[in-house]
Amino acid sequence: MAATTSLTLSHSALTRSTVPRHGCTTTTASQQSSLSIPTFSGLKSTIKSSTRANTRRQVPSTRRRVITNAAVETLEKTDTALVEKSINTIRFLAIDAVEKANSGHPGLPMGCAPMGHILYDEVMRYNPKNPYWFNRDRFVLSAGHGCMLQYALLHLAGYDAVKVSTCPLGQGIANAVGLALAEKHLAARYNKPDAEIVDHYTYCILGDGCQMEGIANEACSLAGHWGLGKLIAFYDDNHISIDGDTEIAFTENVDKRFEALGWHIIWVKNGNTGYDEIRAAIKEAKAVTDKPTLIKVTTTIGFGSPNKANSYSVHGAALGAKEVDATRQNLGWPYEPFHVPDEVKKHWSRHTPDGAALEAEWNAKFAAYEKKYPEEAAELKSIVTGVLPAGWEKALPTYTPESPGDATRNLSQTMLNALAPVLPGLIGGSADLASSNMTLMKIPGFVPYCATFFVFTDYMRGAIRISALSEAGVIYVMTHDSIGLGEDGPTHQPIEHLASFRAMPNILMFRPADGNETAGAYKVAVESRTRPSILALSRQKLPNLPGTSIEGTAKGGYTITDNSTGNKPDVILIGTGSELEIAVKAADELRKEGKAVRVVSFVSWELFDEQSDEYKEGVLPSGVTARVSIEAGSTFGWEKIVGSKGKAIGIDKWGSSAPAGKIYKEYGITVEAVIAAAKHLC
Amino acid sequence: MAATTSLTLSHSALTRSTVPRHGCTTTTASQQSSLSIPTFSGLKSTIKSSTRANTRRQVPSTRRRVITNAAVETLEKTDTALVEKSINTIRFLAIDAVEKANSGHPGLPMGCAPMGHILYDEVMRYNPKNPYWFNRDRFVLSAGHGCMLQYALLHLAGYDAVKVSTCPLGQGIANAVGLALAEKHLAARYNKPDAEIVDHYTYCILGDGCQMEGIANEACSLAGHWGLGKLIAFYDDNHISIDGDTEIAFTENVDKRFEALGWHIIWVKNGNTGYDEIRAAIKEAKAVTDKPTLIKVTTTIGFGSPNKANSYSVHGAALGAKEVDATRQNLGWPYEPFHVPDEVKKHWSRHTPDGAALEAEWNAKFAAYEKKYPEEAAELKSIVTGVLPAGWEKALPTYTPESPGDATRNLSQTMLNALAPVLPGLIGGSADLASSNMTLMKIPGFVPYCATFFVFTDYMRGAIRISALSEAGVIYVMTHDSIGLGEDGPTHQPIEHLASFRAMPNILMFRPADGNETAGAYKVAVESRTRPSILALSRQKLPNLPGTSIEGTAKGGYTITDNSTGNKPDVILIGTGSELEIAVKAADELRKEGKAVRVVSFVSWELFDEQSDEYKEGVLPSGVTARVSIEAGSTFGWEKIVGSKGKAIGIDKWGSSAPAGKIYKEYGITVEAVIAAAKHLC
Repeated sequence: MAATTSLTLSHSALTRSTVPRHGCTTTTASQQSSLSIPTFSGLKSTIKSSTRANTRRQVPSTRRRVITNAAVETLEKTDTALVEKSINTIRFLAIDAVEKANSGHPGLPMGCAPMGHILYDEVMRYNPKNPYWFNRDRFVLSAGHGCMLQYALLHLAGYDAVKVSTCPLGQGIANAVGLALAEKHLAARYNKPDAEIVDHYTYCILGDGCQMEGIANEACSLAGHWGLGKLIAFYDDNHISIDGDTEIAFTENVDKRFEALGWHIIWVKNGNTGYDEIRAAIKEAKAVTDKPTLIKVTTTIGFGSPNKANSYSVHGAALGAKEVDATRQNLGWPYEPFHVPDEVKKHWSRHTPDGAALEAEWNAKFAAYEKKYPEEAAELKSIVTGVLPAGWEKALPTYTPESPGDATRNLSQTMLNALAPVLPGLIGGSADLASSNMTLMKIPGFVPYCATFFVFTDYMRGAIRISALSEAGVIYVMTHDSIGLGEDGPTHQPIEHLASFRAMPNILMFRPADGNETAGAYKVAVESRTRPSILALSRQKLPNLPGTSIEGTAKGGYTITDNSTGNKPDVILIGTGSELEIAVKAADELRKEGKAVRVVSFVSWELFDEQSDEYKEGVLPSGVTARVSIEAGSTFGWEKIVGSKGKAIGIDKWGSSAPAGKIYKEYGITVEAVIAAAKHLC
Repeated sequence: MAATTSLTLSHSALTRSTVPRHGCTTTTASQQSSLSIPTFSGLKSTIKSSTRANTRRQVPSTRRRVITNAAVETLEKTDTALVEKSINTIRFLAIDAVEKANSGHPGLPMGCAPMGHILYDEVMRYNPKNPYWFNRDRFVLSAGHGCMLQYALLHLAGYDAVKVSTCPLGQGIANAVGLALAEKHLAARYNKPDAEIVDHYTYCILGDGCQMEGIANEACSLAGHWGLGKLIAFYDDNHISIDGDTEIAFTENVDKRFEALGWHIIWVKNGNTGYDEIRAAIKEAKAVTDKPTLIKVTTTIGFGSPNKANSYSVHGAALGAKEVDATRQNLGWPYEPFHVPDEVKKHWSRHTPDGAALEAEWNAKFAAYEKKYPEEAAELKSIVTGVLPAGWEKALPTYTPESPGDATRNLSQTMLNALAPVLPGLIGGSADLASSNMTLMKIPGFVPYCATFFVFTDYMRGAIRISALSEAGVIYVMTHDSIGLGEDGPTHQPIEHLASFRAMPNILMFRPADGNETAGAYKVAVESRTRPSILALSRQKLPNLPGTSIEGTAKGGYTITDNSTGNKPDVILIGTGSELEIAVKAADELRKEGKAVRVVSFVSWELFDEQSDEYKEGVLPSGVTARVSIEAGSTFGWEKIVGSKGKAIGIDKWGSSAPAGKIYKEYGITVEAVIAAAKHLC
């Protein structure tokens, strides 16, 4: 068990053991098995296998037992004593690890060890030596604080270095819904009557805390709406929260709510020792193909601990040496810390060869599919590998100042329609209800986007942050990006949102000004598969400006017009999005008065920060302190760009309800204001 | 109808007609009837009335009809023709207003006019001339885009200038849950067997959009848990969303979900003309005293429009002259735009005298209560008026460097415990599930606080923004405020959050460094009744520092130690929260080397911004450009404080999972780093 101490550190990433010490990359629980991959793993396999229909059950006879187990059919029961030993191994790996680090959450792993064992040892189809195998079953631990359960299972299953990060409660189940939706989408697009090449399940364990979160209800409502029959969620019903019994705050009927959301519900009353109940529930869940299934598993948190089980004291703290001994006594566990009994080791060891066989079987199936359906196979390959089709970016239109003006939200739609035919992986949806989980639909090669009003990022912020932390290249298409939306008023007018995302790590915040910049934003966003992008787009119509370009946009900040020489303008006017036009108009006026004026578009701060010092000096020469920025949002952060001698024009109060033109005037976001500020500085 | 054009402008605040043109103050839908008030309105009334039990039903006989109506008992039906005329008046006020502004949402008002009429004309108890009357019934339009319904009703009821702002969908019902919880809380605290002085209902109308939002489910789950029997929510079940039929994305069983949440459910199948069905539903809802009630009212969006009813085209756009005429024909409405027929005017005119009588009756009741229970009356008065008890702040402890160090989250608890006995209005709760709606529990005089991890503000951001926009002085107690939380790792370590709130208007972002600063933050926060405060607090233990004070904290930024003279330090070290200690230690070292070093605590940027230029110059002299800031969070925005020549030490990437001390070292948030930066600058 590599890096035991790391494993025990927290319910977050094993960052120190598996990523550079200063790295910030972590992946969501499911992504231990869904990382984006350089090549289409395994497709080169040459293993032969039958390709007749329903090969899913056809495997070399030596593999039959595990495969049948995997399908939970005609189950030849593994000797129960061994199962119990395996389950206790999982419990004590969790107990010992949390004890050693004196930090972590032993309660859930102790209670959920039985369902965890059955899933990873009897049910799930995976290849521990290739976590990237496309058709593996997915698993998401939404109650991520119990991650020692997953670490123990991955360790026993034969996975090598592991890194897992858990989201704020509720995100994981939304993530699972996205993964199951992706499976259903790809199956519908690529499966053939004679070749079911996309065919895997998504499993999830969630706790009371997940159930309390609004995002979980949003995601599960959609899962029911979409009828995601291959989504099977286990609800660890242990009645204990960090504050004590859930009775203090959470007394709703969860089963009934999920029924209302269109789910199939099964209740396993004895999740502690009712192994057959759990097996039967999974079998029933698989039989229900038109609805997602919630298996409510009533468990005892901290099962096995004689004095702390079923109490909040076992939720998030080490048991303590005395209680660990008592638990060893109680469960009859004579072994040293971190010991895995030989028979358990031997029992689990089969997953390495069996997993290789499962993948080989599928690879053979795909090879046959490829012969028969070369076009579909190529398309699916490009989606799974994430290699963008050559020349895709040629589909992006460009514009001249003569092109008719339009709202950037409409230009965005033009881009999406232009890209759809050339990007098979482009997939997304609109409306604020879809976005909160669509953002987490991360599959290698998919280019997921979602759209809503920019102000509603306040509802999505948890999911957006996790996509940035998880390096999921989601494209957030956020319209109505300022007071420019007009009558909807202050509750819908973003003020602080641009600044709030510029401060967030690993995210690209774009505010394009016209057609070329919208195209440029899409070019970078589509290419950015490990960094999410937010496009803030206008409701109001904007003209196409001189000097804007896809190339310039890709640099984040660039000069669009300039009548100065020797990189010594009298003043630099800096704008973003809908205010770049104002900067251009102000420059025209100032030039009439003989000023040497440079206009800079600052469409993405993050991209500009990444340019060379020479490039930056060429756009914002340090010698020129006469700088005026204009942006219809908070001025917070603009001092970095305009300097202490410059002037940032913006809005540091709430908006109001009126036609856009009127509000701009009221709030002083005007050509006159820019001219006055510029004259004051030069 | 004052400012008709304003009324039609949007589904947001009538800001231009009712607040300063540049003002940003708007109030949530409910707050037209729950604004904070300067004095305890009406208590000086001298009207006599009986004080025997159950006076609720005892009123001057001339008032009997309306009062009985208000109670929906033995209803003498108002002539149905008149009711229909009143309902059509409401419909056409909405139609004409949206038409005139060519902006707004006519569909909901046309469909919900019947329930609106019955609520405001027959059921609700209010005094239109005193929207601040404490014991009035509350109404929240959660489907706020339909605000023309509410404007029309308030106009007919006799209210004067109106200002209403609607939240993002879902916030309104959470707000209603908070208002109903406040009623139940005060009733339990102050009602006596012989004097039921707190006794009002909270009504809410919500639509499909609200039902799709997670926050609505969170709030309604709590409403069911708390058994808020006086909360009656109308679900406008019209099946139409902005994108078309709700079938495209929302097919859950809402009734069943609310049953699961512990609500009583009633279905009014004919919400368009089934007036008696609506009346009976309200009567039934009132009879169920141990559960909140959801009345699902099936309506036709845009009822009356022959060509646009029941389609998304009537949701958010003016009908157009032609369809308006067709609708006038269809509903038999011969009148001019904005006309209120005399008999309708006359019928509604009674609410002014009746409302005055209701308030007078209650005032008399309170006067009797005051005689009998002077202490309780005084306490309730102080809560209702919002006047803080004199000298309350003396309860706040202060500290010296000799006082034992502690985590600011623990010091915060000390403050809350110290304040509870002296602030009867102090009320709050913990856990991220409570906060999302508790934040909206705004009642004059209450000092509401809620607590969770700072990173979970990502789940609350919509509610926090609305509290700032609504000028609700909520105190957000946010612990685990940086990488200092340690093992929980990057998903739980705030990086961008401080910057994201410093960019938000009308909110105070505090990051106290020790006991005195925590006390100071509470002093300002409690006094700030129209501006929310966020306290970012440490999980880790911190020492009490020299020079910190409540007074200094109230200025936002202040010098805590300085060995310079003439306001000319060699270098200024600026820190916040847990990093102020690092600045102090670095200063000690630098002084040993003969440097003149000033250490400034920057506990609240907003408060510092509000100080005089002289004061600011005294803390950050413009002549001193050698400035080093240190904060364990994004450096975004710090350029404003340290200037282009200064150095901001912070974290612009994700955190990681390890013990706090180790992470601080890894991320360079150290005394050595500050010393090095300072030496580089001076």
